[in-house]
Amino acid sequence: VTRVVAVHGVWLDELRTLLDPTVEFSVVPPDDHSQLDAALPSADVVISVVFDKEMARATRSLRLLICPAAGTERIDRSALPPGVRLLNAVGHEIAIAEHVLGALVTLQRHFGAADAALRRGEWLYGFHNAENLLDELHGCTIGLIGFGRIGQEIAVRAEAFGMHCAAVTLHPDKHTGSALQLAWLDPLTDREAVDKLAGWSDALVACCELSPHTQGLLDARRFGLMKRSAVFVNVARGSIAVEQDLYEALKDGRIAAAAIDVWYEYPHRSQEHALPSKFPFHELDNVLMTPHCSGWTYGNKQRRLAWMSRVINDFAAEAARAR
Amino acid sequence: VTRVVAVHGVWLDELRTLLDPTVEFSVVPPDDHSQLDAALPSADVVISVVFDKEMARATRSLRLLICPAAGTERIDRSALPPGVRLLNAVGHEIAIAEHVLGALVTLQRHFGAADAALRRGEWLYGFHNAENLLDELHGCTIGLIGFGRIGQEIAVRAEAFGMHCAAVTLHPDKHTGSALQLAWLDPLTDREAVDKLAGWSDALVACCELSPHTQGLLDARRFGLMKRSAVFVNVARGSIAVEQDLYEALKDGRIAAAAIDVWYEYPHRSQEHALPSKFPFHELDNVLMTPHCSGWTYGNKQRRLAWMSRVINDFAAEAARAR
Repeated sequence: VTRVVAVHGVWLDELRTLLDPTVEFSVVPPDDHSQLDAALPSADVVISVVFDKEMARATRSLRLLICPAAGTERIDRSALPPGVRLLNAVGHEIAIAEHVLGALVTLQRHFGAADAALRRGEWLYGFHNAENLLDELHGCTIGLIGFGRIGQEIAVRAEAFGMHCAAVTLHPDKHTGSALQLAWLDPLTDREAVDKLAGWSDALVACCELSPHTQGLLDARRFGLMKRSAVFVNVARGSIAVEQDLYEALKDGRIAAAAIDVWYEYPHRSQEHALPSKFPFHELDNVLMTPHCSGWTYGNKQRRLAWMSRVINDFAAEAARAR
Repeated sequence: VTRVVAVHGVWLDELRTLLDPTVEFSVVPPDDHSQLDAALPSADVVISVVFDKEMARATRSLRLLICPAAGTERIDRSALPPGVRLLNAVGHEIAIAEHVLGALVTLQRHFGAADAALRRGEWLYGFHNAENLLDELHGCTIGLIGFGRIGQEIAVRAEAFGMHCAAVTLHPDKHTGSALQLAWLDPLTDREAVDKLAGWSDALVACCELSPHTQGLLDARRFGLMKRSAVFVNVARGSIAVEQDLYEALKDGRIAAAAIDVWYEYPHRSQEHALPSKFPFHELDNVLMTPHCSGWTYGNKQRRLAWMSRVINDFAAEAARAR
């Protein structure tokens, strides 16, 4: 039998129904330390967004750690016992790419303001306000900070819109065979490459992991390098952009607008109320504010459950063969 | 010399600067009948969205009528003197296609509601409301009513999003060589083909000319054939959808949502206030309301001026050679 202990994760009841009979599946709440201490020693597989030295010490037979999120910033890789594989979740990349393109159109076309005005009988754009022309994505440049699964799905769609794409990524040499027509692909660790991307982009999109390389990557200096007409999209993690610097860049019109899906403050519990920043982003009219939902689609749920059950069932089958 | 009389049109000052010295360009306001009567007899080219038998009678040397809009519904083709070519404007198709895809994402992801709620500290979607999952365009069907320049640009982008496209058009045989992967392309004049498209589509988009074939094409019966989860997008002309039937389909949840850019009531003058329908669409929260602006971009202006000046200059050069 293969023992799987899920510490974090949603859709776990559905996951259970997809697992082979040889898999013993248990769910342990992350804050129940006695249950955790009881379950971890016999776990072959752990599903958790958090992993630290204390958890590592409790494991005996761990072979696979599944992070049920894209971001592994709360996994201490140095705590992973030797021979333990770490996998992070897939399935959200299509959802997030759609969100990004939709958000870019929403900002350019001022959907929020145009809709609100027309409901009052005001025609802000179009024939009846012909000097108030709108922008297009066609011909614009889009700079991707991060070129993993999400960045690549964004690029596919951006190219169909006639945008010019460039990117920075931790491992540019991995992508030499890509069918995408990137203007360039530079190392994310190269300070000047990030500066160049910031200055070149009409739309700058953060779609990278949060790590020491990306924490605070976008600060007042980099927002200052951007075009005043440019927009910033963050679907990665809030703290990739320095909170105060992003707020001030938007408030002072140093950049034109932003679509922010990832934040600085989160509710402690589901459905609790909480403003997403200590700065009043909610008073700005050049921001599309969404509640960390860009990847939270039915399609993602389907793909993620299919992927996670396959990973676990394959692991169990291999373990059975090895016994 | 080639005489061009512009009755309607925007950006005419810019157009003037792009015309060859052999072109004599004059602008006549559409409601100034005496100026019109004086100008039309010597006009070789007329730029107007309206053309009727009275204008036709005043012309002597007319050879080319340019409609500076996509829709020619106010041009009486039977009034065109023999040998007069009619061209309608191009350049808006990219702008409109971007608007359509952006509007579809906006409706699916509830950007308006999600943004408004987060500004109050409510997290409607995402991890903190994980049962409230969102839809994706990926894998959805999109039905295009009309498959001219606009429909084709929509299809290019929809395919990059992983949508399945089908269309009805007046001239399906024109498109046999298209590189697009349409599920099918049926005649718009076939009542059952339109019914089938309505029933099949997760997103139904009107992007056709207003004509006797399309006036009132979408009525209560056809909205009744649509999926309850489907959305309707109108970037063509308001009256392709029966005003009351569309309002009631949205109000009663017979269809999920709509993005409406073209309307039933318009301001008489620029910047005048006017609600866009006699029905209170402005009270519905499942509608994205935009003020007939989907094509009103800088890119469209550039492309349209380039196209119109080339058409006129080519006409003038040919006329000079013929003299």
